[in-house]
Formats: sequence, structure tokens, C-alpha cells
Amino acid sequence: MHYLGWVMVLHTKNGFFISLEGGEGAGKSTQLRHLSEALKADGLSVCQTREPGGTPGAEALRRQLLFGEEALSWKAEVMTHMAARCDHLDHQILPALAAGHVVVCDRFHDSTWAYQGYGIGCGEADKLSFIRSLRQLVGHEPDLTFWLDVPLEVAQHRVAQRQGPTDRYEGQAEAFHQRVREGFSQAYQQQTDRMIRVDAARSEEEVHHALYELVKERLSARGLL
Amino acid sequence: MHYLGWVMVLHTKNGFFISLEGGEGAGKSTQLRHLSEALKADGLSVCQTREPGGTPGAEALRRQLLFGEEALSWKAEVMTHMAARCDHLDHQILPALAAGHVVVCDRFHDSTWAYQGYGIGCGEADKLSFIRSLRQLVGHEPDLTFWLDVPLEVAQHRVAQRQGPTDRYEGQAEAFHQRVREGFSQAYQQQTDRMIRVDAARSEEEVHHALYELVKERLSARGLL
Repeated sequence: MHYLGWVMVLHTKNGFFISLEGGEGAGKSTQLRHLSEALKADGLSVCQTREPGGTPGAEALRRQLLFGEEALSWKAEVMTHMAARCDHLDHQILPALAAGHVVVCDRFHDSTWAYQGYGIGCGEADKLSFIRSLRQLVGHEPDLTFWLDVPLEVAQHRVAQRQGPTDRYEGQAEAFHQRVREGFSQAYQQQTDRMIRVDAARSEEEVHHALYELVKERLSARGLL
Repeated sequence: MHYLGWVMVLHTKNGFFISLEGGEGAGKSTQLRHLSEALKADGLSVCQTREPGGTPGAEALRRQLLFGEEALSWKAEVMTHMAARCDHLDHQILPALAAGHVVVCDRFHDSTWAYQGYGIGCGEADKLSFIRSLRQLVGHEPDLTFWLDVPLEVAQHRVAQRQGPTDRYEGQAEAFHQRVREGFSQAYQQQTDRMIRVDAARSEEEVHHALYELVKERLSARGLL
């Protein structure tokens, strides 16, 4: 029976789950694209996705969270991010992992911690505790998380070059983005086994090379590459 | 310090929180209106509201839950109901209670238990446990809950007379509505201190009279009437 139990566990999660984290202008979307293409070129099945969103239901929640006219209370905002995450997990991430794919996701649990916990919640203990409880209930931590860290002035310069509408978080003041960075830093210090800090102020190519090498190393260790 | 603590507790909740629960066609909306009018005539400040919804942000989530094209996964649906509830609590119910109002709400925590736990979730233990954990995290149980209980055939006859679009839950099969009733019954059996079962197959006037007398009794006991 013990043996059977292990077989079942292996069967329900054959893939590998990577999240890319960081503030605005860290280069997550660009690196996500490069990493996915490199892994596909290696013959792997890659599921490239993002949060909030990734599934039709979660994208509808994303529109309300980022561009909705009706601002939610702090708790409601956190809970809506978690709702979108549940849909994304159930309808996209978990089936992809079960099918043995590599899932590469732009933002996951750590963004809620940094943005809602620190950016908006200012790191207040009761708010961090609320997020921690929900996170535990939702579960499914990535196998590997990259924190793409850039100094605020570099990030701001990159964001200033962007086209398109500004969402609720991008449009916040500098102090907000400083707190978000503090949130990622705090998460990183507590979870060095899962989370790797990457100096993302370097060139696009250098950052890609760093990420790709680290991912290959982990996938090889798991026998996936 | 102890004395000051008590004063603060009393200050943060002077009002009285009533929820009306039940399946489709139980007469909740009608009774909510009658009860609110009667209490207003008694000179009380009444906040008449509903779930999912009650605030602009929660009503936006309601539209997705009840009429959205994109069906959410079970966990995401539960979480979105809870998100709407958080907004409703933070922006409407808690401020109204703090101001000493009587809040009368069409559906609250018990509807999530009955609809998502039993109706959709079929009473599965892990699903009930997920709802229970979230409910505990969100908190704020009503002071008094009426379960307006009607046999399914009476409810179906009433629903058949209605105009307007059918939402995601109303349109479910009979077995679904039977499970929902079982969910309310299960909630009632576990929480007889807070929850009162009312035979809602009686006439509109009889049910109103029953509710009104019970509310007056509780409000008097609290020194609010």
C-alpha cells in the first residue's frame, strides 16, 4: 500500500512549476517569454501563463482587480486575488503539471505577499497573518521562484518607456513600490530553498542566461531534462 | 484597562445583524422588505442589504458569479463569494453596525454552506472543511439568522411565477435544490442558538408576523427596542 501511495503522488505531479516575481519594470514578462522559448527548444512542453489571470474566469477577475471602477476593501482584494489563483490552479496549472509540463508563471503567491501585504497593507501583522492563512489554504507553492530584483530607479526608467493603460498597482507612488520590494525581500529571506534572487538590472541576455542555467540545473536534478 | 476594553467593544458594535436564509422561492426578499419596514416604523435605523452584493465592488463580483460567461472552479467560486462578503462587511455591514443600525441581509455565510457546500459540493468532507476554514477567517456571524424553510414543490411553484432572467443557481436541477435544503438543515441543527427555522410555506402575513415578533424579542433583550 505504501508503494501504491507513492506511485499516485508521482502521477498527480509530473511537471515542474516555476514562478517569476518582482516589481513593475523588473522584466518578468520578457524573461518569461525567453525562458519558455528556450525550454521549448529543449523539447519540453511548456505552459506559459500569468497572474492575476491565466484562465477565462481568472482574467475576468483580473479586469476588476486592475481596471475596475469599484475599489474593493483590502480583505476583498486579497480574497479576489486568491479566487483568481484557485481558478488558475484548478483549470490550468494543476492539469498542466499532472500532464508533465513545465509551468512558467508571471507572478504567484509572493506577489500577493509583496503587493497586498507590504505595498497596500504596509506590512501590518494582522494583514500578513490573513494572507498567510489564505495562502496555506490555497496551497501549491512553486517548485522554484525567481525574484527579479532591480533598484527602483532602473524599474521606473523601464516603466516610463511602456505603452498602454496603467493599472491600479503600476500607478501607485514611489513609497508603495519601495514597500513592495521590501515585501519580496522579506519573502526571499524566509524561503531561500524555493526562491532565488536574480540581479535583474543586468542586460536582457545576461538575465536570461542566468535564469536558463538555473532552471536547467533543477530540471536535470529532477530527471526532467 | 479592562473597563476601557469593554467600552471599546461596545462602541465597535452597537447594532444588530440579522440574516435571512433559504432556497429559491422561500420568500426571503419579500420578508426582508416587510421586516425592514416594520422595524423602521418602530423608529430603528435599518440597513437593508443582500448577498452576493450589497456594495458596488461586491455587486460587480455578483454579476460574474451569477451571470458571468466564465464558470469558475469550485474553490474559486467559494473564494469569490467570500471576497464579495469581505467587501460587503468592510464597506457596508460593519460600519452600519458600528453606527448602531439594524442590518437585515438577504443571505450570508449559511448560503455558502448550503449552495457551495451541499448544492454544488454535494457535502463532500474536504469541501465543507475548505468553506469552514474560510468562514472562520472572514468571521462576523449574524446575531440572528432565520432559515425560511419551504417544501421543494411550494418553492418551485413560487419560482415559476417569477419574471426576469434566471441566475446560475436558480436554473439548477431539483436534486441540487434538495441538497441545498439539506445544507440549511444541517447548518440549523448545528447552530440552534443563532439560527431559527421558520415554516415559510405559510402566508406572507403569517411569516412576517412570526419574524417580526422574534426580532422584537431579541432586540428588546439587547436593549435596542
